[in-house]
Amino acid sequence: MKYIEGGVTAAKGFSASGIYCGIRKNKSKPDLALIYSDVVCSAAAVYTQNLVKGAPILVTKRNLENGTAKAAICNSGNANTCNADGEQKAWAMCQLTAKELGIAPQNVIVASTGVIGQVLPLEPIQNALPALVKALSPTGSADAAKAIMTTDTELKNLSVELEIGGKPVRIGGIAKGSGMIHPNMATMLCFLTTDAAVSPAVLNCALHEAVRDSFNMISVDGDTSTNDMTCILASGLAGNPEIKEGTPEYAAFTAALKELCTALARKIAKDGEGATKLLVCRVTGAKSDTDARLTAKGVICSSLFKAAMFGADANWGRVLCAIGYSGANTDITKVDVSFASSAGRIDVCKNGAGLDFDEDTAKQILSQEEINVEITLHDGTFSAEAFGCDLTYDYVKINGDYRT
Amino acid sequence: MKYIEGGVTAAKGFSASGIYCGIRKNKSKPDLALIYSDVVCSAAAVYTQNLVKGAPILVTKRNLENGTAKAAICNSGNANTCNADGEQKAWAMCQLTAKELGIAPQNVIVASTGVIGQVLPLEPIQNALPALVKALSPTGSADAAKAIMTTDTELKNLSVELEIGGKPVRIGGIAKGSGMIHPNMATMLCFLTTDAAVSPAVLNCALHEAVRDSFNMISVDGDTSTNDMTCILASGLAGNPEIKEGTPEYAAFTAALKELCTALARKIAKDGEGATKLLVCRVTGAKSDTDARLTAKGVICSSLFKAAMFGADANWGRVLCAIGYSGANTDITKVDVSFASSAGRIDVCKNGAGLDFDEDTAKQILSQEEINVEITLHDGTFSAEAFGCDLTYDYVKINGDYRT
Repeated sequence: MKYIEGGVTAAKGFSASGIYCGIRKNKSKPDLALIYSDVVCSAAAVYTQNLVKGAPILVTKRNLENGTAKAAICNSGNANTCNADGEQKAWAMCQLTAKELGIAPQNVIVASTGVIGQVLPLEPIQNALPALVKALSPTGSADAAKAIMTTDTELKNLSVELEIGGKPVRIGGIAKGSGMIHPNMATMLCFLTTDAAVSPAVLNCALHEAVRDSFNMISVDGDTSTNDMTCILASGLAGNPEIKEGTPEYAAFTAALKELCTALARKIAKDGEGATKLLVCRVTGAKSDTDARLTAKGVICSSLFKAAMFGADANWGRVLCAIGYSGANTDITKVDVSFASSAGRIDVCKNGAGLDFDEDTAKQILSQEEINVEITLHDGTFSAEAFGCDLTYDYVKINGDYRT
Repeated sequence: MKYIEGGVTAAKGFSASGIYCGIRKNKSKPDLALIYSDVVCSAAAVYTQNLVKGAPILVTKRNLENGTAKAAICNSGNANTCNADGEQKAWAMCQLTAKELGIAPQNVIVASTGVIGQVLPLEPIQNALPALVKALSPTGSADAAKAIMTTDTELKNLSVELEIGGKPVRIGGIAKGSGMIHPNMATMLCFLTTDAAVSPAVLNCALHEAVRDSFNMISVDGDTSTNDMTCILASGLAGNPEIKEGTPEYAAFTAALKELCTALARKIAKDGEGATKLLVCRVTGAKSDTDARLTAKGVICSSLFKAAMFGADANWGRVLCAIGYSGANTDITKVDVSFASSAGRIDVCKNGAGLDFDEDTAKQILSQEEINVEITLHDGTFSAEAFGCDLTYDYVKINGDYRT
């Protein structure tokens, strides 16, 4: 498996575009994205577990019941959530897009991201659709990636290639994150494409497996969004023999998908609102898979730990505190903690108690852009990895005045 | 029931003191507190549910097994937690205090608050004990309250008086909060005294009832501390007939205790690290008590909502989002939300969808020091109230460099 260029248009049969339609006030930032497949695709998705679900989520869920799709439309700047006319507008977005593309509206995936509770204006979308469809390009992935961004500062646009049954197969994705990021058995906005031949049911399994270890293991601020969704379209144009569950080909495809999703998830964590650092918490030696996940996520979510990392302060007591309230079943007297980065590695806690360590070395290690917190529980064989970011002045700034 | 002066020394038989002993570097802030009762008291306590428990918690738990105590000693600046010699040191604190007071070490409640994982030096405490005992005064509550503070900016020192069986009974308390505040079936540091005649078992019930609706309903940052504890000493010197469970006297005593704890809890929330505002979330019309509590706490804990309140931004979508992931069983299409403060009241959401409202009025309402978020679920008869604070630049500043 190797990384290649192309994002969601790396796989055979896909084109994409992104333009400014007028939902956002800032004209320099595109706000409408389209992904299109030449053929009808197998499709699967995972959605937010928040009881409050964005209207587009409800419409997409219905549209994907038969496991097929041919296009995905997404606007930024308005979440179309908590609006009385939300579902009607989301369905109208599918109809307008379908009409312009000459396809069935049930084959359109619809998504919206931005402010909750403001009525979505349809006109800007309707007026922009002809130009959006005209702009579709086999190299348009970055344009689409840009159009779905909100407070993101960096493009999340990646793709990989692997071989299945002697045929090269591509998987690509674009994603957006930044704030209200704490996916719970679901994820934020991510659109994936592949040219692998694979049924909707098998694709669904592979997607859930990949999301579990990638998007579901990140948190920016503990707030589970109302509009989280990851979807994948498989065109089948790679010409590989259809991937069946339980085969080595399924394992290879899922591993590649997981690798891609994890790379996108890391980008989302690193580009969390106001973040200056990516935090990776690796837990090993846990009693169970659940304990490993709870521990890693507990640490990544602690506001106190996140603020300490912003200050490059090796305050490992906050790591222990977070492990203690994470809900994981752990013997605290066996816990070891180390910090590591490109500047080195330092042990700070052994058997649940502090070690003497050099503060200057620790400061140096914690002043890098990617910090690994390594936790060994000495209590079993399970492990997990979670991704987060530091808590900074800019997070407060961005969110103290996001809406107005 | 009325508020009176005196704090933990308002009740008959209690004296208190607070001095600087040298655990904290800053000499202008006292760091050692003592509360003393002339007679052996009925005693009860609730403790943190964090798996990582401060060493003093373990020692106090043991000491309170027989339901009696005569003194409480507490240092700030060092939590004596995650130290290999922590329990030994905490027990030594009891022994040293007991020796100076001429009482049994098992009758001493011990507590520590401050940085986790730094070895506690005993010498400063040992050297300061004669002066601390000498300083004991029937008007010493504020001194003790000051000595237990860490990043707190305001004293939490309150007392009330009520009548039981024709006798005036007093209840007083001091507390500290600020950061790592997310009590879970327990609380932060709070020392309560009363001169009511009441058995340890009944006192324990009353304390748990009071804590449930007060300290357990606040959050500053979602981090459940390792050293949370609320304890109460009852001297019995008020001369009231002993309070029995299930009587009107028990109800009156518990109501007064709850009122006092809630007032202290509000003070802790308002004085949360970096906070500029107290946030009160009132939920009514919930299906169950649990649903009401989950909803109120979910909203109070949302980083996005807290940052919006800092910016006086009426971003009610974040309130809905938090309700949605709070775990409460709710029909989102029935939810109403209003904001209120001393500057007025404004309805922003009805039946789960946005209302047209005047942004300037909303800004004015949200620019006050105490903000009420009123949520009506129209789904039942249960209600709850939770207390929190806004998320500010100063929270990040304080916690980016707390330890060094």
